[in-house]
Amino acid sequence: MKKEQAPVEILNQGPDIFIPNISVDCIILGFHSCSLKVLLCKFKVCEKWMLPGGFVAKDEDPDESARRVLKDRTGLKNVYLKQFCFFGKKDRIDTGENADMLKRFNIQGDKGRWYTDRFISLGYYSLIKYDEARLFVNEEHEEARWFDIDDIPPLYADHKEIIDTATSTIRKQIGFIPMGYALLPEKFTMPELRCIYEAILGREIDRRNFQRKMLSIGYIQPLNETRRAGAYKSPNLYTFIKDKYEEAEKYGIQVMSNNF
Amino acid sequence: MKKEQAPVEILNQGPDIFIPNISVDCIILGFHSCSLKVLLCKFKVCEKWMLPGGFVAKDEDPDESARRVLKDRTGLKNVYLKQFCFFGKKDRIDTGENADMLKRFNIQGDKGRWYTDRFISLGYYSLIKYDEARLFVNEEHEEARWFDIDDIPPLYADHKEIIDTATSTIRKQIGFIPMGYALLPEKFTMPELRCIYEAILGREIDRRNFQRKMLSIGYIQPLNETRRAGAYKSPNLYTFIKDKYEEAEKYGIQVMSNNF
Repeated sequence: MKKEQAPVEILNQGPDIFIPNISVDCIILGFHSCSLKVLLCKFKVCEKWMLPGGFVAKDEDPDESARRVLKDRTGLKNVYLKQFCFFGKKDRIDTGENADMLKRFNIQGDKGRWYTDRFISLGYYSLIKYDEARLFVNEEHEEARWFDIDDIPPLYADHKEIIDTATSTIRKQIGFIPMGYALLPEKFTMPELRCIYEAILGREIDRRNFQRKMLSIGYIQPLNETRRAGAYKSPNLYTFIKDKYEEAEKYGIQVMSNNF
Repeated sequence: MKKEQAPVEILNQGPDIFIPNISVDCIILGFHSCSLKVLLCKFKVCEKWMLPGGFVAKDEDPDESARRVLKDRTGLKNVYLKQFCFFGKKDRIDTGENADMLKRFNIQGDKGRWYTDRFISLGYYSLIKYDEARLFVNEEHEEARWFDIDDIPPLYADHKEIIDTATSTIRKQIGFIPMGYALLPEKFTMPELRCIYEAILGREIDRRNFQRKMLSIGYIQPLNETRRAGAYKSPNLYTFIKDKYEEAEKYGIQVMSNNF
C-alpha cells in the first residue's frame, strides 16, 4: 500500500487487497487553544462523522496500516502511535448503514459486499503536535475537522466507545505516556501542560500542586523566557528534558499517576 | 458455539463457522505456592506449548469466544477477563509450522487451508482462583499445565510476546486491576498478596512498606485468625473488603501504582 486512495477506490478493491473483516481506527489527539482535540472525518454523502481509519493490506503489519492512515490524513510520520484495544462486538456496525453508504457511492453488486460483513476494528491512538498536522482528505468525497474531546458529534458505529476506551486507557496508564512531550510544542506554559492532564483525567487539577509536582520530578525545566500575552501577565515558558521523558515512557512517572 | 470440540474437529470446520484470519488467545493467570502461574496447552503431536486459544464464531462477540475458551479449559465462568491488545504482525506465525500441524492431524487439502493463512490474535488475560480451576483438555490430543510466569518453556508463534505484553499492561494499570481479589482465596496472608505484586512488578517489594500501605488504603482487613504453619510462626490472615475493591477497579487505587 503506497498511494493514498479515494474511498470509492478502496471500497471497490476490498478483499483482493485487504484482510477481510478487519479494520483499523485511529484516535488522533492534538492540543490547541487550551483544549484536547480529536480528528474526525466524514464522507460527504453521509451524515455521521467517523474516526480516520482504513483496512489492513495483506502485506502490511497492522501498525503499518495505522501509520499509513495517520500519514494520509495529517502528513505526519514518526509520531507517537500505540495500539490499545480491539472492538469486535457482532452488532457494533449497522450493516444496513454500510449498505446505504455503498449505494451513495454507487458501488453495486458483489464488489461492495465485503463491506457489509462484520468487522473487527483494531484501535490505535496517536498524540501529535497540532500545529504540524496538515489535514488531507479527498475533497470530492470527504471532510476532516478537529473536535474538542468534550464536544464530539454523533459518530458512526461504536466510534464514540472507541474514543472513550482510548481516553480511559490513557488515564489508567498516564504515568507511562509522554502526554505533554508528544502534544506540546518545544516551549510551553504550565497552564497548557495542566490543561492536557485535566482533559484526560476529566477533572480540575489544583494549579499549585500540579506545578510543584511537575517541577519536582525533573522532567521539565523552566526557560528564562516568557510569552507575550497581551494585557495579562506574561506566563513563563518551560521545556521538556527529552532523555528523562523517554525514560518515563519505559518505567513510568510515579507522580503522574492521578495523584494531583 | 456450544459444545467443546476436539482440535481436529475445529480445524476441519474452519471458515464455515469462524471469522477468517482472527484468533483469540487467553493468558490465564493463577496463584499457587507463592508464585504466579500461567496456563499453557500443548497438542501431543507438537513440541511447543501454546496459550489456550480459539477462534471467533460468526455469531459470537470476541468476549464470548474468550469466555468459551476459558470455560472449556478450566470449567470456570464469571471470572475476571479483560481484552488487552491484539497481535497481528504479518510474520507472527510460522505458516510452515501450521502446515506441519495439519499434516500431523492428517487434515489434507482445502479443509485445512484457512489455518495456513495469516491470523490476527485478540489478546485476553484472566485472573482466576487456582484452586477452583479444573484443567480440561481433549486427552487424546492435548496436555495442559500451569507454568511459573518466570519459567516458561519455548512457545508457539509470538505467544511469549503476548504474555509479556499482558504482564506489562497489568503492570502499567496495576492500580486499576483487582489482582489480589481475583487471584487469592477469601482468606490470605500478607506475604501471599505481596508475592503477586512482586511477580507483576518484577522486583522485590519492601515487606513493611507493603503491609503498611495495604492496610492504610482500607481495601483489606485483618481477620482474628492465623494459619497453622508447622514449625513457623503462624501468619495472620486477611480478607478483602469487596465493595472497596470494586470501586478500585473503576477509579484506581492510587497507592498501588508501583510506589512500594
